[in-house]
Formats: sequence, C-alpha cells, structure tokens
Amino acid sequence: MDAHGPIGVFDSGIGGLTVAAALGRVLPREDIFYVGDTARVPYGGRSAATIQRYSREISSLLLEEGAKVIVVACNTASALAVPVLESELEVPVLGVIGPGAHAAVQATRSGKIGVIGTRATVRSRAYEEAIRNLDSGIQVSSMACPLLVPLIEEGWLEDPVTDSVIERYLAPLLQEGIDTLVLGCTHYPLLQSAIRRFTGNAIALVDSADNCALAVRDLLQKRGLVSDAGTGRLQVAVTDATGGFLQVAERALGLRVGEVLHRTVRPLTPVADPASCL
Amino acid sequence: MDAHGPIGVFDSGIGGLTVAAALGRVLPREDIFYVGDTARVPYGGRSAATIQRYSREISSLLLEEGAKVIVVACNTASALAVPVLESELEVPVLGVIGPGAHAAVQATRSGKIGVIGTRATVRSRAYEEAIRNLDSGIQVSSMACPLLVPLIEEGWLEDPVTDSVIERYLAPLLQEGIDTLVLGCTHYPLLQSAIRRFTGNAIALVDSADNCALAVRDLLQKRGLVSDAGTGRLQVAVTDATGGFLQVAERALGLRVGEVLHRTVRPLTPVADPASCL
Repeated sequence: MDAHGPIGVFDSGIGGLTVAAALGRVLPREDIFYVGDTARVPYGGRSAATIQRYSREISSLLLEEGAKVIVVACNTASALAVPVLESELEVPVLGVIGPGAHAAVQATRSGKIGVIGTRATVRSRAYEEAIRNLDSGIQVSSMACPLLVPLIEEGWLEDPVTDSVIERYLAPLLQEGIDTLVLGCTHYPLLQSAIRRFTGNAIALVDSADNCALAVRDLLQKRGLVSDAGTGRLQVAVTDATGGFLQVAERALGLRVGEVLHRTVRPLTPVADPASCL
Repeated sequence: MDAHGPIGVFDSGIGGLTVAAALGRVLPREDIFYVGDTARVPYGGRSAATIQRYSREISSLLLEEGAKVIVVACNTASALAVPVLESELEVPVLGVIGPGAHAAVQATRSGKIGVIGTRATVRSRAYEEAIRNLDSGIQVSSMACPLLVPLIEEGWLEDPVTDSVIERYLAPLLQEGIDTLVLGCTHYPLLQSAIRRFTGNAIALVDSADNCALAVRDLLQKRGLVSDAGTGRLQVAVTDATGGFLQVAERALGLRVGEVLHRTVRPLTPVADPASCL
C-alpha cells in the first residue's frame, strides 16, 4: 500500500460527493478519486447480490487508480457490500454505516434513534445492527424514503413539495419519540435545512458524510497512510451521463469538480465462452 | 419467424406492464413474455449509448424465448434504441413513440400537443420528430417529469403530494395552449385520473400503452403472425428484485402476474481478454 495513492471513493451516483466534500474539509491535502456508477444508479431498490457485484466492479476501477483506501460513500452499498469488499480486497475499506451508528449512539439521550434511507438500506437493518452492537438498550425506528433522492436530484431542496414529503416520512418517527435522526443516505445532507424545518432543533441530525470523513482520517493515521504529497485534488469519474444533478451538488456543496472522466464497468467474471478461443 | 412464439415485451422495469395489460385486452389469445430490467432501472437519466446497449441485451433474452416480435414498452428505449434494434434484429420491432405520435396528431384540434416523459425521452426529441413527420405544422411542447415514476412506484397514485407535482410539471404546458397531452412514459397511465384532475376533460390524454397495443395487432395481422394456439398467458421475468411496485401495478392494472422468473443479463460483447485463453 502506498500513502501517495488517492483516497478512492465510490457511490452509486453523485450523492457521495457529500462524503468527498467532507473528506476535503477534514483531510485537505489528500487527493481523492471518486467514481459514481451513474450507468446503474440508484442501488437503493436492488437485491443484495446485485449491489455486491456492482460494488466489486466499481472498487476494481478505484484500485486501478492506485487507491490506498476505499470509502464506500453510499449507504446502500455500505449496508450490503462492505463485509464482502473487506474480505476480498487488500486495501482497507470503510463505509458510512459504522461511523454514523457510532455518532448516533453518542448523540442520543432518550435512547430512541431514527434512521432514514433507501429501501435496500432500511431492509438490510444494517444501522439497527451496528447501533445495537454498540448499545443493545437503544430502540431504533427506521423509515425507507425512496422519494427523497429523486427530489434532491430534481434540485427541489427548498420547496413546499419536498417539505410535504419529509413530513409524511418523518412524522411516524417523531411519534416514536426519537431524539436523534441518522441521515442514512449520502444525498440527504443536501436536505438538512428542509429536514430541520420539520424536526426543529430538539432532534440531533447525524450526517453520514461528516462522520465517515472523520473515520477515514483516524484510519489513515493509524495505518501510517496519511499523504504528505497530495494536493487536495478531487477527480470525479462516472460510468455514464451525470445528468443535471452534478450542478446541483456542486452548488449546494461548494465543490469545484472540473473535468469529469468516464470509466467503463467491466464484469469481473469473464463472460466469453472459453470454447470460443479454441 | 414462428406465429406460435410469444410477443416479447421489455421495459426498464415494471412500468411496461401497462403495455402488457393493453396487449392482453387487444390480443387476448397471444402469449406474452415480458422482461423488466430491474437490475438497471430506470433508463430515463442515462446516455443514448448505454440505453442502446441495455436494450440489445434485453432483446436477446426475449429472442431466446422465441419472441416473434419485440415490443419496446419503454418510452426511453423506444426513443433511443428502436432504430438500432430494427437494423440488427430479424424479428419486427415496435416501440411506443410512433403509435403515440400518430394518436396525438389524430386527437389535436388546436395543433398544440404537449409531451411528458423522462429526461432521456424529452432530450431525445423523439416525439417532436415523429409528430412533425406526420404534420409539420403542429407545435410540440415537452416537459421532463423525473419525479412521476418514483411517486408511482411509491404507490402514491391518489395523493395531494402527487397532485402538487403534477400541477408543477403541467402548468407551463397548459399555458402554451395544448389540447392534447402524450403520456410519454409507460408508468404514466397509472396517474391518468390524477392528471385528469388537473387538466380537466378539455385536454385529450394519449396513452402510449393502448396505442402501442393496437399497432402491435395491426403488425401481426399484416405479417401473418397472429397466433391461433396461444392461451393469453403472461410470463414476467426480471433481472433483479421487483421491489414493491409489482404489487402496485398488479392492483392498478387488474393483472395477475403469478410466478416471476429471473434472468441474468449477459453482455453481448465478449469482455474476457482473448489472450487469457492462450
């Protein structure tokens, strides 16, 4: 492993740029290579096996760029693929679930935590398990919010329609008495002020992006992988069109992305019939 | 070509079941084999090259089932991949754009037609071109409505949030003076009554599913491909999980889908390095 390599970050799409932006704040001298799998976004409704296959394929693109660590900046892939990647890859792998669960347990006073995310993240029960492993007395209530990502990608961040949808999804969690809410999707930090309008200040919002970035810093320090030669460059690559959301994310996050590269996903299992070589 | 084969129908997901349901009404004795590419749904935000590749791969699954005709029950793929499939495949290929454009031109009195669809469908200008080829004097106004599919898949068919979103998307088209609106996405027929609430009865709604089914009937009759042995069986296969939307579609369309098969997409271009065989 080479401390000079970039931090490899991937997401199903562009939402993980919230993690890249947080990494830039916490580790301003590290180079970041980001891949958004826009040819197959979103991962949130797919099966575990498919999410694991896609995550392996995108990780191999990051390894080709010399990534010294792989950050899974996607809650869905973190929930379903991090253990698989950890067992298969030689570089350290870090997802957003562990750091988010840790921060939520630190934040709660009532012992009641809410989690919002995609259908696949909620169905995986990954946050429940991570939180219960830290403190088995905590009550976790989860809600799948499949409309939030499309609303964010449409750029309706400050919008009465979005406010209505947030109210619909969050009201049942507030009735459960939660005092902490995990934003369990890397898109959701962009809705922080809209969510805050509904929840008020009494509820702690746990942003998976910030907590993940802090965990990456700890990991690099522990493993002696902090770079002294990086320039803080962010290189973004996608597997297909970026759509209009890249502009939404750049504006909302204050990121300057520059030229976006294209990468083609190659299935890792050879699919050509070996007999065809004869 | 064999008149006994099924009608092959594909969509990026489950939305194309509106076309399968319309085919069942118009051609009740034909067998239908439907593939929903749920591993890669939605196609609507992707590039033309990716949509063409996905369409080729899914068509090859239908040909393996002996499909005598391929119906592209997806506006995005119809807009971007039908010409490619027509030139490459030996069976007839029929999309939803042509029949929808034809019905819209028949319906309009004011000569002003509105089209709603995904970002990729609207960007392709496929409806504009098809309508202008039929009558160059017609004015076409288009609006990408990326939130409608997620709202439908969430099952919010009769919902004030959905009504607000519809109003936001359609108000500019109504201000243009349209008297005909093409529902340019196979999901949208499920929102027909919600759309009708906003537009009132003065605007003709053109349903791509119904018009496509009638065009398939004409084509089978002309080519002597009408089956006299089919039982009207609908077999649905998907490339990944179906999510909750299959139940929404079954209920809204009155379809009985039964057992859903799984199919794996295989890239058509061999990707293994031939040198690895040496």
